[in-house]
This record gives sequence, structure tokens and C-alpha cells, in this order.
Amino acid sequence: MKKLNIGVVGYGLMGRTHTNAYRQAPRFFDLEYEPVLKAICGRDDARGKAFAKNWGYESNETDWRKLIERDDIDAIDIASPNNTHHDIAIAAAEAGKMVLCEKPLGRNPEESQQMVDAVEKAGVPNFVWYNYRFVPAVTMAKNIVDSGKLGRIFHYRANFLQDWTIDAELPQGGEGLWRLDVDAAGSGVTGDLLAHCIDTAMWINGPIESVTAMTETFIKERMHQDTGAVQKVGIDDACAFLARFKNGSVAIFESTRYARGHKALYSFEINGENASMTWDLHDMHRLGYYDYADESAVRGWRDIHVSNTSGDQPYMDKWWIPGTNIGYEHTFTHGVYEFLKNPDADDGKRHYPTFADALQTDKVCAAVLKSGKDKQWHDV
Amino acid sequence: MKKLNIGVVGYGLMGRTHTNAYRQAPRFFDLEYEPVLKAICGRDDARGKAFAKNWGYESNETDWRKLIERDDIDAIDIASPNNTHHDIAIAAAEAGKMVLCEKPLGRNPEESQQMVDAVEKAGVPNFVWYNYRFVPAVTMAKNIVDSGKLGRIFHYRANFLQDWTIDAELPQGGEGLWRLDVDAAGSGVTGDLLAHCIDTAMWINGPIESVTAMTETFIKERMHQDTGAVQKVGIDDACAFLARFKNGSVAIFESTRYARGHKALYSFEINGENASMTWDLHDMHRLGYYDYADESAVRGWRDIHVSNTSGDQPYMDKWWIPGTNIGYEHTFTHGVYEFLKNPDADDGKRHYPTFADALQTDKVCAAVLKSGKDKQWHDV
Amino acid sequence: MKKLNIGVVGYGLMGRTHTNAYRQAPRFFDLEYEPVLKAICGRDDARGKAFAKNWGYESNETDWRKLIERDDIDAIDIASPNNTHHDIAIAAAEAGKMVLCEKPLGRNPEESQQMVDAVEKAGVPNFVWYNYRFVPAVTMAKNIVDSGKLGRIFHYRANFLQDWTIDAELPQGGEGLWRLDVDAAGSGVTGDLLAHCIDTAMWINGPIESVTAMTETFIKERMHQDTGAVQKVGIDDACAFLARFKNGSVAIFESTRYARGHKALYSFEINGENASMTWDLHDMHRLGYYDYADESAVRGWRDIHVSNTSGDQPYMDKWWIPGTNIGYEHTFTHGVYEFLKNPDADDGKRHYPTFADALQTDKVCAAVLKSGKDKQWHDV
Amino acid sequence: MKKLNIGVVGYGLMGRTHTNAYRQAPRFFDLEYEPVLKAICGRDDARGKAFAKNWGYESNETDWRKLIERDDIDAIDIASPNNTHHDIAIAAAEAGKMVLCEKPLGRNPEESQQMVDAVEKAGVPNFVWYNYRFVPAVTMAKNIVDSGKLGRIFHYRANFLQDWTIDAELPQGGEGLWRLDVDAAGSGVTGDLLAHCIDTAMWINGPIESVTAMTETFIKERMHQDTGAVQKVGIDDACAFLARFKNGSVAIFESTRYARGHKALYSFEINGENASMTWDLHDMHRLGYYDYADESAVRGWRDIHVSNTSGDQPYMDKWWIPGTNIGYEHTFTHGVYEFLKNPDADDGKRHYPTFADALQTDKVCAAVLKSGKDKQWHDV
Repeated sequence: MKKLNIGVVGYGLMGRTHTNAYRQAPRFFDLEYEPVLKAICGRDDARGKAFAKNWGYESNETDWRKLIERDDIDAIDIASPNNTHHDIAIAAAEAGKMVLCEKPLGRNPEESQQMVDAVEKAGVPNFVWYNYRFVPAVTMAKNIVDSGKLGRIFHYRANFLQDWTIDAELPQGGEGLWRLDVDAAGSGVTGDLLAHCIDTAMWINGPIESVTAMTETFIKERMHQDTGAVQKVGIDDACAFLARFKNGSVAIFESTRYARGHKALYSFEINGENASMTWDLHDMHRLGYYDYADESAVRGWRDIHVSNTSGDQPYMDKWWIPGTNIGYEHTFTHGVYEFLKNPDADDGKRHYPTFADALQTDKVCAAVLKSGKDKQWHDV
Repeated sequence: MKKLNIGVVGYGLMGRTHTNAYRQAPRFFDLEYEPVLKAICGRDDARGKAFAKNWGYESNETDWRKLIERDDIDAIDIASPNNTHHDIAIAAAEAGKMVLCEKPLGRNPEESQQMVDAVEKAGVPNFVWYNYRFVPAVTMAKNIVDSGKLGRIFHYRANFLQDWTIDAELPQGGEGLWRLDVDAAGSGVTGDLLAHCIDTAMWINGPIESVTAMTETFIKERMHQDTGAVQKVGIDDACAFLARFKNGSVAIFESTRYARGHKALYSFEINGENASMTWDLHDMHRLGYYDYADESAVRGWRDIHVSNTSGDQPYMDKWWIPGTNIGYEHTFTHGVYEFLKNPDADDGKRHYPTFADALQTDKVCAAVLKSGKDKQWHDV
Repeated sequence: MKKLNIGVVGYGLMGRTHTNAYRQAPRFFDLEYEPVLKAICGRDDARGKAFAKNWGYESNETDWRKLIERDDIDAIDIASPNNTHHDIAIAAAEAGKMVLCEKPLGRNPEESQQMVDAVEKAGVPNFVWYNYRFVPAVTMAKNIVDSGKLGRIFHYRANFLQDWTIDAELPQGGEGLWRLDVDAAGSGVTGDLLAHCIDTAMWINGPIESVTAMTETFIKERMHQDTGAVQKVGIDDACAFLARFKNGSVAIFESTRYARGHKALYSFEINGENASMTWDLHDMHRLGYYDYADESAVRGWRDIHVSNTSGDQPYMDKWWIPGTNIGYEHTFTHGVYEFLKNPDADDGKRHYPTFADALQTDKVCAAVLKSGKDKQWHDV
Repeated sequence: MKKLNIGVVGYGLMGRTHTNAYRQAPRFFDLEYEPVLKAICGRDDARGKAFAKNWGYESNETDWRKLIERDDIDAIDIASPNNTHHDIAIAAAEAGKMVLCEKPLGRNPEESQQMVDAVEKAGVPNFVWYNYRFVPAVTMAKNIVDSGKLGRIFHYRANFLQDWTIDAELPQGGEGLWRLDVDAAGSGVTGDLLAHCIDTAMWINGPIESVTAMTETFIKERMHQDTGAVQKVGIDDACAFLARFKNGSVAIFESTRYARGHKALYSFEINGENASMTWDLHDMHRLGYYDYADESAVRGWRDIHVSNTSGDQPYMDKWWIPGTNIGYEHTFTHGVYEFLKNPDADDGKRHYPTFADALQTDKVCAAVLKSGKDKQWHDV
């Protein structure tokens, strides 16, 4: 394995998940590059040093520009808030680094397009952390559709339901709450949650052609966490949209942070002429599968616990024993594997989302948000 | 119990469910009126006679106009295809009979409005068979919302998924297949299935104010069952819509007959500030209930098997033993109970859907179908 | 259809379920005999008359001996407490009546043997109400095993869990509580609940050869409902046993009325070389089915909603529409159908439990109870 | 954090899980000791070196005696087959090392007793890898019972079902298959699987006093993997037993490797006077909880997804985000945490299984196996 020196920007939740993935992927998978934790970058020096010590980074930086300038860094991984993605990614590409970026790529398609242009101009491998593609059951769903088992697709439906912002006293903005600040996040549930649903959907079911949406902000004003000032809430608390795919199938998507009882219920269902599938994140090893080819009397939804180790279920032969689970964290581990097993792969052989892929998702999000405002259908 | 002489129009599936309900309701519930199976009406005399013999009707008729003319009939129950509802209901009302009608009321709001006008002018008790209100778990969901346990409502979602028309060789129109003929049915899944979802939704969550919809006809032409002629399919095979309720909550609804794997998956979910609920028809005794007031560590979705007999779960104390199920048929039995325990109840005390209620559902359906065509939001 | 005049002894819960079944079976199934509700028999005349009126019996009796003497009665159905089965059944057989009897047959194998001898000597058709055989999913499980799909059977496990006697203040004996009185019931959960598990098990998996058991009485004394006297509890509150079947498979069985949270959780699982199945009464339409012949990657437990109407799932083509449920009551309706479609069938063609079958179950129960006392394995 | 130099014996599956846990525990938890991967020990030098390189061990050994002799090793962790536990553990204890040992402790209580004697004489901290205690939902179940929420316990039931040895052509003995060789393993499912069930049960519900068991070997002869010789199978393929706990509750336990459809279905249920709980390994984050104190109408089994991060559910606040899963591997990570946060804790403050605890489990297993042979009840 060649060494790949990595500098990660951001020591928050995503900084942790990426770092853990870099440490774990080479233990379980064969990679072309072994990631080396060269530097962590965050504005607070003490916190950066503590993070570096805990996770085994060789150094820390407090300015991402300095990180990019370092010759001993081969790849920049952006795990900081959405409003930082654009500038860091472009600078990293211009410096000739590989670039990995948390999703959504930019806060809007304009930012994202510039980021795509930058990596393509620089010719650097690039990756966006749409981690849910790498849930074994989700990858398997993709493979099953590709195999043709479902036949013509009629329906796709997906949602991502949470309930953590119901309390009107919850502040917005600042540490841990930047996702509620429209300037930092770009949008609310659309960019944060529906972007995942859209990425998976287009990966499995092809391009979305048109959408009509409804957005809602239930709590109209919140105090800012840092300043204490009560300000208008600029994000979408909830968003639902209808969509048509290029393949003729129709779809509904929904996301909210006001669905009492759901913590991270990302679920999807796809109905084909011959078979259907369902999945949800809370029970992420289980893939629902209904095959009309089964004998009528004993036909039923199969509850597949995607955990066999015989090699015909994605990733699982690298882990433990049949019937046992892996965790959320390994959606990132598998992402590292897919990227680093061959980051220079040609277009058709890449099994990971690139900046160009993420741009398409951002375009759908933008059409959705626009429709939420003008109440019209929009082509993507 | 007073006697109530009933004449039922239609000896198909709904004729059977209504008839069974008339026979069963008085065995298990106290009613003001005991239904008497006076006459069954259907065009085929032999078939009508066989139906009458099996179910205990005193007589049969082959012309509904004759049935209505009979002095020994107190109530007319319309269980025939949608395109017959309007004329029969109006004639029955004008003859001073109580009128019960299968859903949807008319094929469009214009028909329905005339039917409402007729029963109101005649001052006759009237009832529409939105039977799913009477699933014990659904009635309980309604009661729980009314109790205020959910607090402010944020979200409602419902769907009704079937898969019986995927085969392109399935004919349309004629015996057993009139639901696929737009002239007989008025619409496809919107009037047949979404009407149920809308009725339940408005019963539980109040009026729907505006909608935007997407409709699709996957199979464009089918052979007519009777004539063999290949004709354009006029119905909506699938329909999804976004909606806003008067109470500020937002909703998604979807129905299709192309969801491979689902036979009659009517499900709904409602998310409130303090609690949420889920239900589906395939496991109709189970009500999902999540209460944020539960202690955090042991908080979770409750899977309530609505089958205790202690009297605090609707209807179940009249049936068998705790933990045991009743069937689909008793959604009709309970409907008979709710109507006949006091058909002359004042508005506020009626626990059953009237023609006026069903008209509101038809208006939503009409707005949905219109939006499916012109792709605009419409107020109801 | 020929008429079959029936006299039912007992107007309690089982009197209701049997009566309802007699009324419903001919509406949905073709029978050789149409049951006629000739007389209900119970000690309280007023209550008997009210029951007769509600359910449509032509008459009532207060003495079962009189009922049996009546020439206009063709069949005696015993739905009264266990301590009455023996005498009534023998008298009925001696009078040349068909005999139907609630389970368990007798309170012990000695009583049961005499009952078997009586019906065999009289040559009268006889039936025991092991109603759970007639759940469509259970009948289908039997058919699947008979088809050979499971291959060699390794394991059988069943339990019947309830929670209604946890309260130490609950009295024993008398109306509605005779099941807690050892003299009336013969035993506790063993005869009341495990008898069902054993009947189903032997029907599906063949004879049980030997058992070892553990019985427990958690509440040692209870007040008698009628006398108020505090008396020793003589029944088994809970019973678990290990068993070996003649076919080489091994089994565990358990029943209790102290399993907080379970109302009527009768469940079983059977593991074969090639396939396995699970079922439980709370979700009685669902049969779990796992087939090792399925392709490895998409192999999983199938959740079969036994509700199609195409005729390949037992009974369901006679009811309503695909995807909809029938209730507990129709386990009795199907029992009536199986008996009355041909009560004179030869041994090999009977699809219902006879007195001789029930005697075998009673022998297993007796071996279990004996083992509960002497702590030894016993052959059946 | 102090450093703790660890030498692990065994580079098989358990060598991997333990090693991963040593690497991960300090990243997420505060420990008194930071584990240092000093040496891996396995008989094949090349394989040991490869293992060391992948996981970051400083060195490898091929003879466990040499490992124990090394002064730079503070703790010996035994992850090799059961027949090696006894000698290694005693030698390690005599050398004054902390000792961690895979379960079961010895192959029989005699071996285990000597191991207990050795660590107690040496006064060294000791730990047995009963990892399922550390599933967050299982730890929470223990805490809930300890809190008194269940009241008097009536029932405990547990099973561990697998299906990987159904094929008669599967060999026994040798690499990866030593669990099927009675000499290496000591017993079959009893020591391998039921030992887990028993450990959890006694941890949660207190001592088991007496048992009666049934064991079965379905496949009587198998070829030895290494020699090719067909030999008698000496292990128990399946084992079920009835048990009485000291607290008066009664229990059933079952394990098999012939339950087609189950890969690693470890499940348990506990029924108390006031509440009940269920859990299974396939959906390891979910704890079923039924609380009789809930209001009757909305009482039901709660499906608790043990994944909140607010600190009231064990371990989860150290991981990721609410609603997301951790994997099987972290049952070992949590074990390392519990041991290394304070290995010198006094008896009452230890939250991990010691050699003395494991000896009790071995005694139950021995009584079970004895009963399987002589068919008698045995006290433990």
C-alpha cells in the first residue's frame, strides 16, 4: 500500500467519523493507498491538539489555508460546515490535492458548479461523503436493481424523518447548531437530509427530471446561540416533493425535523414490475425484498438480514460472523475503501460519488427549494 | 329495537359486506333499529335469488326503481358501481327513505352536491360507507387526537398501495373490473383508494385547504372485458399529492395499484408536538404510538394491539377475548352500529360519515385530479 | 344442504363462538349439512332465553339431559366447563347424536378414554374444538410440512403466554373464573392452553413420545369467587416442558398466565432441514417462512400475509379481498365447515380433530402434569 | 492514562475482535489504562507477523509460554480454543499478569475452578469475555431490573439459535471448526452458546438453582477436517433445559445449530409482575419493554431503539448521533472499557464478568450436560 497523507478540516462530528474511517478501513479492506493521519485542522488550537492526540494525528493546524500549503499533505478532507466547502475545495484542487468533501457539496448549484470545475480542471480525484450509499443493504439494493430483478420501475419513495428541533426554545446557529442557520447551512432539511435521499435515489433509479415541492418553517423565530438575538428562521423545517424520474417512474420524498418519534429514520422503497424493496436506517442491516416470481402461496416480503459472510452481500465478508451487525460508522469506512481502493479509476469504474454526482443532487435540491417558494413544477 | 326494513342495491363484494354487517351488528351491539333484510336488488334475477337465499333476504328485485317504490322498505343501501350512486340516492331521498351509499359518494363534486341537496331537502338520515373509520385502532387514533395528547400537529402522511393491475393483459370494465373504467368509476385510485385516506385524514386532522398532485397512467391501453375492444385507459393508475391542512400541518398522500408486494396497504402516520401515531390495514389491530412524555431512557414506539376488552378501546369489549382479532368485515358491522344506534342524532353527536362529509372528500379528490392535469396548486 | 338440528350446551364465551360459527359457516362455505339452531341449554332460564333471542335459537333448555332426550336434536355441542364434558358427551353418544365438544376433551385421559369409547361404540361423528388448527396460516403451515418442503424436522417450539392472573386479589372459581378452579378445569394452563399447542404440534409434526416438565403455582391461595373462602390454588399457573417427537425432532413448550404483556400469545416455530416456519396468534394472518432454496444473497424470512384469494391459501378465497383480515371467530367457522362438509368421512379424509385425536393430547397433558410432580421423564 | 502492555494469544476471530476493541476503546472512552498492543501470539509465525502488521502489534510470538515470560507484558488475553484456556490462564496468573480469557472459562468446572484459584491466589485482575453483557440494550435491561421496575420476576426465557452445521458434509475439528470437536471445545452448543445465555441470565436475574435438560446430536458422524477420518460426533448439536432461579422465577433455555433461518439469534425475555422486556441480537439496539403502569388504552410493547445520546442509555453518548447503530464489535470495546476503567475495583463495583462469575456459568453448563445424559434434575 502506498501512503496517502491526509489533512482533515473540521474536528466536529464529521471529523470524527472520517478519522475513524481512515483508521479502520485498512484494517479490514485492501486499499491502494493507506491513509496517514497527517494533520487535523480546526480554529481552536487546544481542541485541535486534543483531537490529534486522541485519534493519532501527527499535527494540527488552525488555518485551512496553511494546511493546503503543506507539501506533506496529499489529500484534503473537508468536514467543516457547508459555508466553508466552496473555498476550501477550490483552493485544495488548485494546490493539486485530492479532495474529499462532506455533503452537500456547496450551498447551492452555483457554488457546486465552481467546485466541480476546479477539480476537473486540476484533474484531481474527488469524493463526496454520501455515506449511506455504503450501507451494505443499500449497496445491495443498488446491485439488485442493476441486475434487472425489479423490471420496469413504477415507484420510488423516500423520507428522512427526525424530531430534534421541535422545542421552540432550541437556539439556532453556532457550535453544533449551524445546521439551523441558513447562512451557514444553505438550507434546512433539504440540503441536510433530502440530499441523502436524492443521492441514493438517483444512484439506484437514475436521473430526476422534474419536481414540485412544499416547504414549511414551523418555528418562525429562534434565538441565536451565540448572540442571544431572536432572529427569523431562514431554513426549511420540513420539505416534501413529488418527482418524475427519467425512467418513467414517479416518486415522493419527504423530510422533516418535526416527526416526533423518529431520530434518523431515513427510509426508501422502490416498486418494480417484478419485485420491490424497502430499507430504513434504524434497522440498517435489513433489506425488505418482495419477489413476484416466488410461488404464490408462500410469497411474502423477505426480511433479509444483510449479514452473511459468504461474499454475495456487499462488504460483510470483511467483518465478523453471520448474523451480527456493523455500525453507522462503517458507512464512512466503506466510503474510504471505495475511494482509496482505486481513486484514479475511470468514470465507469468508480463506485463512489464524485463532485460531479453531487452537483446533480444540488440541482435537484435547488429546484425543490425554488418550487417550495413559487409553487410550480420545475425541471432539473 | 324497532325494525328497519332495508333494501340493498348491488350483490357484489360490497353487497356482501353490507349484508353481513346488517346480520352481525345486532348480535353484538345495542341498536335503536334492528335491520331487516327485506330485499336485495341486482339486474340478474337468478343471481339475486341465490344471493337472497344465502343471506336471508325476504325478496329480490331487478330494478332499483321498483325497490324504491316499495312501501315496505325504510332504507335504501347503495352498493352498486359509482355511476349508479347519484340517481339511486336522489330517488331514494325523494321517496323519503334513509339512504346509505358506498363511497365515493358521486363520481364528482357536482353529482355529490346534488345528492347532498336531496337528502337534506328530504331530511332523511344518510350515511356513506367510509368503513375504515370503524377499525377499532383508527377510531382510537381519532379519539387520541381529540383528547389533545398529540398537541400541535405538524405532519400527516397516508398511502393506499395495491398491486393488482400491473399485468398489462388485465382487461378493464365489466363485471368485477368496473373500477378500471373511468366512466363507471369516475376516476382511478383517487376515488377508489385516496378517498378513504382523505376521509380518515379530515376526520382526524380537520379540513384540507390546498393540494398539488401528480397522476400517472402506466398502462395506456387495455382491452375491454366485455367487448374485447382495446381502448385508452382513462383512469389514474397512481396519484400522489401534497397538502396543507387548515390547522397548519402539512401532508403527503399517495395511492397506486402498481406497488408490487402490497395488497391493501392503507397506512397513515400523524406527528404531533407531543406524540405520534401510525397505523396500517394489513395489521389493523396494531396502533403505533409514541409519547414524548415517557421517561427518556425507556421511551419508544408502543405497539398497541387494540384488543383489550376493558371498554377503553373502541368496540372491542363487544367481541371476544383479549388479544384476539376481528376481521375487515366488522369495519362495516361497526358502521351499521354507529348509524343505527341513533340515525337521527344531531350533527355534533353523529359518529358516522354523512353525505355532507363525503362531499368534502369528493371536493378534495376533484382538486387533486385537476392538479394532476394542470400541475398547479388548488384550494379545496 | 340437509338440515342438522343442533343443541348447544353452554351460553358463555364458547357458546357464543360456536353459535356464531353455525350462523356464518353456511353463508361462506358449501356444507353437506346446514346447521339449525334448535336449542341453547344453560342453567339460568332467563339468560338462556335472552341468548336464544339474540342468536336466533328456536328454544332453550335448562337441563342438558332434557336436551339430549329431544328427538328434534341431531347433534349435541358441549360448550360448558370441563367437568361437564364427560357425562354430557357419553349421554349424547348413547342417544345416537353427533357430538361436538370443547377442548380439552376430559379432565384427564381416563375421562377422555371413556368418551372416545362411547362415540366409537355409538358410531357417531364427533369433533373437538381445537379451533387454532383452522387459522388459515396454521392450516397452511400443516400443508407445507406435509408437502415435504421442510425436509427432516429438527425442532419444534411453542408457547401460549397470557398475563391475566397476576393480580393476587383475583378470585378463583365460579362464573367466568372456573378455569382457575382445579375441580372444574382439571388443570391450569396445561389443559387450557398447552393442550392447544400440543394438538397443533402433533397435527403438524406427529406423535410426541416423551416429556419432562416443570410446573409452578405462583399465587398459592385465592379467595373463591362465590363463597369468599380463601383456598389453596390447585392449578398450574405456569408449565414448561421438553419433548421428543417420534420423528426424531426435539421440542420445548411453555405456557403461563404470568407473562406480563401477552394477552393470548400462542406462537410456534418449526425448523426443518430445508425450511422453517413461525406463527403467532396476535398477528394470525402472518406466517413466517424461511426457505434455504432461495438464492443466498436475497434469502430471508418471508412474512406471508395469508390473505390472498386465489385459492392456494386455505379458506381465504371464501372471504373478502386480498390483503384483508378475518377474525378469531372464524377459526370456529372453519371448524364447522370442516366438520359439516362431510362429518361421515373416513379416517384418512377427516380434516378435523376427533375425540380420538383429543385423547392423545390429553395423554400428553397427563404425562406433563405427572412429570411436573415427580420430576421424571415420562413416555406418552 | 497509564499504559497497559497486552499480549494476546490467538489470531483467529476472537483475536481480531479483542484487538479491535483495544484500539477503539481509548478513542471513545476514558480509561485508567491505555492498552498497548505489545505482542500477538499464534503458532504460525508468518500469519502472526501479518496479523501484527495489520493491527499494529509491536511483535509476535509463536509460543504462549514465551509470551508469558516477557517482562514487557502486563496482561495476557486468551483468545485461543477452549482447550488452551486452562494452562495459559494459570501460567499467566502465576507470572503475575492480569488475565483476560475468552468464554467459556474452562472446558468443565474442574478446569475453571483451578483457574479461579490461580487468579485469586495471584491477586490479579481477571476478566472473561462474556461480551453480550455490553450490548447497550442488554446493559440497560440489567439496569432496569436492578431499578425494581419489573417487580417480582416470574419468567425468564432465552435461546441462541444458529443453523450453520445442518450440512452433514461439514467436517469437524481443525482450523475454524474446533468448536465441533468435543476435545477442543469441551461441549457443543452448551459451552459455546448457552454459556452466553446463562451468563446474561444470572447477571440480570440472579443464581440458577436447578435444571433438567435434553441434549441431542443430530448428525452422528462427521469427517475430521485435518485427517479425513470419519469419527463420532461428541458434541451436543442442540440443548434445551428447564431451570429454577433462586428468586423463584422459572425459565426455559434452548440452543441449537440446526434452526434453519437463524444465524445468531440470541434472544431473551423476562416477565415481571409490573413490566417485561425482550431483546435479540439480530436487532441488537432494540429493547422491547412493556410497562403495566402505562394507561390501559394506550399500553403496548415499547420498541426502544437504544441509541439516544443524552446519557441515560448505556454507552451510547460516547458514539455518534441519535438513531444510529453501533456494531457487534463494540460489545468487546465496551468490555475493554469496563475492565480498564478500573481493573482493581472492589467486588461490588466491578461491572464486568470475572473468572469467579464464569465459574458459576460453567457449573450450570455442567449440570445441564449431566442432566442431558442421566435425564434427572440437578442442583447447581
